[in-house]
Amino acid sequence: MKHTTDLDALKQRLAELGALEGATMLLHWDQATFLPDRGGTARGRQLEVLQRLAHERGTDPALGRLLAGLSAWAEGDTSTDAALVRVAQRDFDRATRVPDQLVGEIAAHTSASYGEWCKAREANDFAPVADTLARTLDLSRRYADCFDHEHIADPLIDRADGGFTVATLAPVFATVRTALVPLAKAVIAAPPPDTTCLNGPYDTDQQVAFSRTVAAQLGYDFERGRLDESPHPFTVGMGIDDVRITTRVRQDDLTECLFSTIHEAGHGMYEQGIDPALDGTPLATGTSSGLHESQSRLWENRVGRSEAFWDYWYGPLQAVFPGQLAAVSQADFYRAIHEVSARLIRTDADELTYDLHVMMRFDLECDLLTGAIHVADLPEIWAARMTADQGITPPDHNSGVLQDVHWFAGLVGGAFQGYTLGNMMSAQLYEAAELAMPALDEQFRQGDFSALKGWLNQQVHYSGRGEDTLPILQRATGRGLDAAPYIHYLTDKYRTIYGL
Amino acid sequence: MKHTTDLDALKQRLAELGALEGATMLLHWDQATFLPDRGGTARGRQLEVLQRLAHERGTDPALGRLLAGLSAWAEGDTSTDAALVRVAQRDFDRATRVPDQLVGEIAAHTSASYGEWCKAREANDFAPVADTLARTLDLSRRYADCFDHEHIADPLIDRADGGFTVATLAPVFATVRTALVPLAKAVIAAPPPDTTCLNGPYDTDQQVAFSRTVAAQLGYDFERGRLDESPHPFTVGMGIDDVRITTRVRQDDLTECLFSTIHEAGHGMYEQGIDPALDGTPLATGTSSGLHESQSRLWENRVGRSEAFWDYWYGPLQAVFPGQLAAVSQADFYRAIHEVSARLIRTDADELTYDLHVMMRFDLECDLLTGAIHVADLPEIWAARMTADQGITPPDHNSGVLQDVHWFAGLVGGAFQGYTLGNMMSAQLYEAAELAMPALDEQFRQGDFSALKGWLNQQVHYSGRGEDTLPILQRATGRGLDAAPYIHYLTDKYRTIYGL
Repeated sequence: MKHTTDLDALKQRLAELGALEGATMLLHWDQATFLPDRGGTARGRQLEVLQRLAHERGTDPALGRLLAGLSAWAEGDTSTDAALVRVAQRDFDRATRVPDQLVGEIAAHTSASYGEWCKAREANDFAPVADTLARTLDLSRRYADCFDHEHIADPLIDRADGGFTVATLAPVFATVRTALVPLAKAVIAAPPPDTTCLNGPYDTDQQVAFSRTVAAQLGYDFERGRLDESPHPFTVGMGIDDVRITTRVRQDDLTECLFSTIHEAGHGMYEQGIDPALDGTPLATGTSSGLHESQSRLWENRVGRSEAFWDYWYGPLQAVFPGQLAAVSQADFYRAIHEVSARLIRTDADELTYDLHVMMRFDLECDLLTGAIHVADLPEIWAARMTADQGITPPDHNSGVLQDVHWFAGLVGGAFQGYTLGNMMSAQLYEAAELAMPALDEQFRQGDFSALKGWLNQQVHYSGRGEDTLPILQRATGRGLDAAPYIHYLTDKYRTIYGL
Repeated sequence: MKHTTDLDALKQRLAELGALEGATMLLHWDQATFLPDRGGTARGRQLEVLQRLAHERGTDPALGRLLAGLSAWAEGDTSTDAALVRVAQRDFDRATRVPDQLVGEIAAHTSASYGEWCKAREANDFAPVADTLARTLDLSRRYADCFDHEHIADPLIDRADGGFTVATLAPVFATVRTALVPLAKAVIAAPPPDTTCLNGPYDTDQQVAFSRTVAAQLGYDFERGRLDESPHPFTVGMGIDDVRITTRVRQDDLTECLFSTIHEAGHGMYEQGIDPALDGTPLATGTSSGLHESQSRLWENRVGRSEAFWDYWYGPLQAVFPGQLAAVSQADFYRAIHEVSARLIRTDADELTYDLHVMMRFDLECDLLTGAIHVADLPEIWAARMTADQGITPPDHNSGVLQDVHWFAGLVGGAFQGYTLGNMMSAQLYEAAELAMPALDEQFRQGDFSALKGWLNQQVHYSGRGEDTLPILQRATGRGLDAAPYIHYLTDKYRTIYGL
């Protein structure tokens, strides 16, 4: 049984790699939550060493030989072990296809680029970083060219969302945009809800405590995780029994902490829901950026912004904040958390307009990579698209092309599609869940979210990276990527709320 | 300049090792503070891998060759770089002298031994672990025999307190014991102070907040550290700008949180006070267990239990807890925090009797290692010594020989002497500080602790491991280890308080 011996050796190597990555994640988590103000230098040294060791081990030719020896066996096998070999082979290929020289160039450039972006933000001027971004584009193309591809953006998309390409995404995104632009315009033109009830002030400790209660009741397991505060909310899984989430909280915006927490709890429940047998292997995490986002958005919006959810939770929320909410009806509160407006900044956007920001960036990434548009023209093209999509024009670069860190702290390509993919898949999955469990709304009204969580555990979470996104979607919903459920959901919901 | 090239190569290896150790410390810190209940398995994997990598790198023959090439140069040099070479050589020798086979046996045995100790504690019976401890003793001797030594305990003591041996410690410990036993008996026989004012209940959040204020004012730098809660208070330095302390807090004992915090702040100020140029090198930590303890005990007892300290802090403390303390005079409070009684459990002991516990364990370690006493007789010998020293006899094994984890989670030898060494050195150092700065008490009464902290920074902290304990003591106090100042301090203080 040569393959058994090799498989054991492979598992040992992968476990070591996983432990190094888990330790690295703790260093990052701590940096975002509890690191002393002046502790950054030491943390930088620790991160540099652990990441270098992980890279060395992840690209070790001996690992490549082990994988090569196992590939024939794995191809013809449907076991979890075979999936492990295939995924490890994919990771190894991705790590070794790119020459070390190019990896070094990219690291050095993106590090410098980030500093220049910070300066450009201070000056509110895109011109000084135009050449930097052009060089990032060049490096992004060279990276992509290390892999076979149809569209130059495909290998960059594949890093985050395996199985998706420009050819498959562009048409569905176009369908979503065609429906969303007029819908958003009509909603924005309608009389807006009164949102003053959200502005408090609300005690921040009480907000976090309430969010914690909600997350626990939705099914996020605090014995296998924790909730802390950080400047940007995130989820980090260092093992399926140590999946931590963070949130942020503002006195003057009740939605910030609560919906951030529910969003991250959705990510957290994905990682906590993976088959325990996969713990410590490269299969024990989410299978793609889009599928991960489908879980966070499903809980945040489909559940957390549903009427049934608030039929249960509005009373408890009023009980925590009677001074602010006792005189506010549930219907008015519900309308307030569905306020829609055209906003220049992506991260400020509401549920309805968010995808317009995302899909614009996706299109710009593709066009920059192919050379269809040029970096120098970016501010103008950005402004034109914002005007076309949302009827607003950035008055300056900071609220336009300089707003996102992504293109200045990494490559161009593949950074954005996951958000809209996630929204679309959340709608597909939720439609399938409702078909399978017609009483979901009734259960939510009783504060019972366990059936939905159980269904997602089984359909989406359990296989981890052992199964790719499209096969999961196909199995869970009976079809591939489909824009219709998402468009239907948004149209139906917002037409009802705004009386259109 | 061959040595310059080699030195750079050495520094790079040591920096990598230091970063791995820093990351390992964060894993430990997190385990004691914030790790989710069920996160232990993943954490175990991460720790195992990082410790193995650090061991591999710390014993790499290439590191040994680099050091060997530099040793001749370093011997004749007084620079920090030369100190770095000498300390790195010492660490390398210690890590490589012990055969991997024995290292593995020790690791496997102590891991199993810990589990057996837990079971023995449940049964409150020493007999089931007697053979285990005998095997630990055998391994401890085999470990010690890997090094040159006069007394078999010396190499084990040297691990924690370089420069000290049984021959140098035994006579001074005997002197301390001879003075302490009758003093403690006299104090215990005197009318005890009323300690009910310490029992509260005291709000735990307010206690932590007050302790934080005190630690900051003593000079612990919160921009380069943080204070959290953990079951056992500890200090961890992951770089001189990230030195964290923990405390524990009880509603019914005001002294627990405050003095634990001051104690750990003393450790923390040591690590924070090291020369910034040493950051990231093996020199950037405390030079010995005893010297580290001298700093924690100096701040906890010489400062935190002084009259001048409370002349400043008692008012603020009363202001935080007026209900409990408004009617308690400062004099009564001061007597209460100096309550002395014979106690069976070392970790419950007061300032005066603590060293009796420690020195008993030191003597038992030495006698066990030489074979002068046998494991089977340990409960009886323990009881006889407790009776002789403190006039009390353990009624069972859990309050006697089974109380400490040390001998069941590591080797026998070297685990205890640092506590009493630290107390003795704290008295020597404080005497020298008072000579150099006669106005210390007056400064404390104004809430100003900066002169003392500055003196300790310069005399004790700054050189880190670049200087050994005895040279530091000699430079700072003008002499070697001396029991007199400690005996003088305790005798004077407790005779005054108890009117003897």
